[in-house]
Amino acid sequence: MRIIFDAMGGDNAPDETLKGARLARDEYGVEITLVGDEPLLTERAAALSIDLAGLDIRHAPTQISMEDEPTAVLKEKGDCSMAEGLRMLKSGEGDAFVSAGNTGALVVGATMIAGRLKGIKRAALTTVIPSATGAYLLADVGANAECRPEMLVQFGVMGSAYMEKIMGIAAPKVGIANIGTEPHKGTSLQQETYRLMQGAPLHFIGNAEARDIPFGVADVVVCDGFTGNIILKLTEGLAKMMAGEVKKVMFKSPLTKLGALTMAGGMKGFKDKMDYSKYGGAPLLGLKAPVIKAHGSSGAEAFQNAIRQAKTMVENGVISTIETALGEMRQKAAEGGEQ
Amino acid sequence: MRIIFDAMGGDNAPDETLKGARLARDEYGVEITLVGDEPLLTERAAALSIDLAGLDIRHAPTQISMEDEPTAVLKEKGDCSMAEGLRMLKSGEGDAFVSAGNTGALVVGATMIAGRLKGIKRAALTTVIPSATGAYLLADVGANAECRPEMLVQFGVMGSAYMEKIMGIAAPKVGIANIGTEPHKGTSLQQETYRLMQGAPLHFIGNAEARDIPFGVADVVVCDGFTGNIILKLTEGLAKMMAGEVKKVMFKSPLTKLGALTMAGGMKGFKDKMDYSKYGGAPLLGLKAPVIKAHGSSGAEAFQNAIRQAKTMVENGVISTIETALGEMRQKAAEGGEQ
Repeated sequence: MRIIFDAMGGDNAPDETLKGARLARDEYGVEITLVGDEPLLTERAAALSIDLAGLDIRHAPTQISMEDEPTAVLKEKGDCSMAEGLRMLKSGEGDAFVSAGNTGALVVGATMIAGRLKGIKRAALTTVIPSATGAYLLADVGANAECRPEMLVQFGVMGSAYMEKIMGIAAPKVGIANIGTEPHKGTSLQQETYRLMQGAPLHFIGNAEARDIPFGVADVVVCDGFTGNIILKLTEGLAKMMAGEVKKVMFKSPLTKLGALTMAGGMKGFKDKMDYSKYGGAPLLGLKAPVIKAHGSSGAEAFQNAIRQAKTMVENGVISTIETALGEMRQKAAEGGEQ
Repeated sequence: MRIIFDAMGGDNAPDETLKGARLARDEYGVEITLVGDEPLLTERAAALSIDLAGLDIRHAPTQISMEDEPTAVLKEKGDCSMAEGLRMLKSGEGDAFVSAGNTGALVVGATMIAGRLKGIKRAALTTVIPSATGAYLLADVGANAECRPEMLVQFGVMGSAYMEKIMGIAAPKVGIANIGTEPHKGTSLQQETYRLMQGAPLHFIGNAEARDIPFGVADVVVCDGFTGNIILKLTEGLAKMMAGEVKKVMFKSPLTKLGALTMAGGMKGFKDKMDYSKYGGAPLLGLKAPVIKAHGSSGAEAFQNAIRQAKTMVENGVISTIETALGEMRQKAAEGGEQ
């Protein structure tokens, strides 16, 4: 198995991408191709004393920046590391692609270069978010600000495959993020999605109210990318805000600091539970091969995790599981089984 | 000043509405008309030894339930306490209306019976939510699942008046809930609202990313009711979830319980800071008179707070401030100044 890795993506490239690739190669024995500016990569590797043995390099002269328009990956930046990596994925020179670069460019590039699965309208950018009872997958979190009902059903099917194959959850519960539980709640998007979900090959549990989502009411929460991005970022913001407030309480006086010492282990456990970098990067689902968007601020360890995640996606056959479910759905629809 | 109070609304009516009205009458000296089933109200008051001196009762034979369709308030339940109270408000028999009844019915009833201000397309259901730096007003939180850009601008104008007059914030910062800060972010709703906001008589600060909202990036956050309801309920759910997790850490062992004792005061302060019942009920803005939606689970104290909030809205001229701003906006638009 070979993971194609965008060595130029993210705030900390290429030093941290080089370190992360080395760690992943040593730990998981997976073959890795670093895509990027070859002279720079070999120079930085030498400077950091990183042994490149077992790490291939594919030269790409440019890189896409956060300021570039997403479509630049197809045009003026067609020779960037991200585009080159995706072409390698398309031609079968590797089994999965990992990048911490420009998210919009990755969505466009992966869709247009690596290609979508049959019947998939739009690829979904997804994220696994911790909850009180474990974690749930949220789809879409921003690749598609506006969605049609069929897309949300596909997100449910793809998210189920991911949660089953990667997180080991049998028959993941799929819910629609909504403003009430009754079938008529929300806008026409949620109402129509509700109707279509009932005929889809997944474990549909109905609407998921936002107040119940952090308690794990569903294992897969589907919504348009606008709503999903709001949910993802509000979760991040509130967790940070509340953690800060609790910290203030704990560090208020010498006495409270002493009190805080008694619960240092517990607070560490809580922090770890809420830390979603442990779930790796954001999988882009609906493509012909696994593509992982690593966080822009990833360091070596986060890159190592993202490479492991890509490896697990390949090993556990997430893509073929999605393909099978999509085929089943098409067949049902052809038989008029979707109502 | 007279507050019209739906004595039959909410899970705990009429016992807690009677108690709350008594408390408010005694504390604030405001005149109150209880609207509801007169024989029941007098019987419960006697049973609870609540002195009805200074509290008027207006008889209404029925009440609207949580299961009733919102439009029932205009038709088959036209003789309910909520409808009767709103008719009193319309005819000037009182200065503001408070109800903990069916939210949808209150939005429909207040709009159709009490009436909207000139130029207002839709009334907004709003809520003041605590943040790290104070509190912000979120509009709309569910009265209008889908919105047009002009509505969001009106929400901004009305929310500003509320935050200025009731919360004492000079020139409240108004932001659009969005998935990025740049003007082109979001759907056409946010993009067009951004353009219109620049010509509106308010302190527009641009888009408010969800991760910055809990840190008080804006004093007024506008969005469609679907997004607002998601933000409100996710905030509730996450706060509850995280508080539960912190509690688990604190009560893990005899030692941590001892440690927790040292920060009991701080945790109480944090809990109070995050408790948004202190801001009263949810003001329905855009109407000719103040209308407050008290929480369905309100007890006597929450009802007392909601009546005080209604009184403050009347005293501080929130409605006339909104009217002035709307007039200014109409004039600007007529002059072509909205650009």
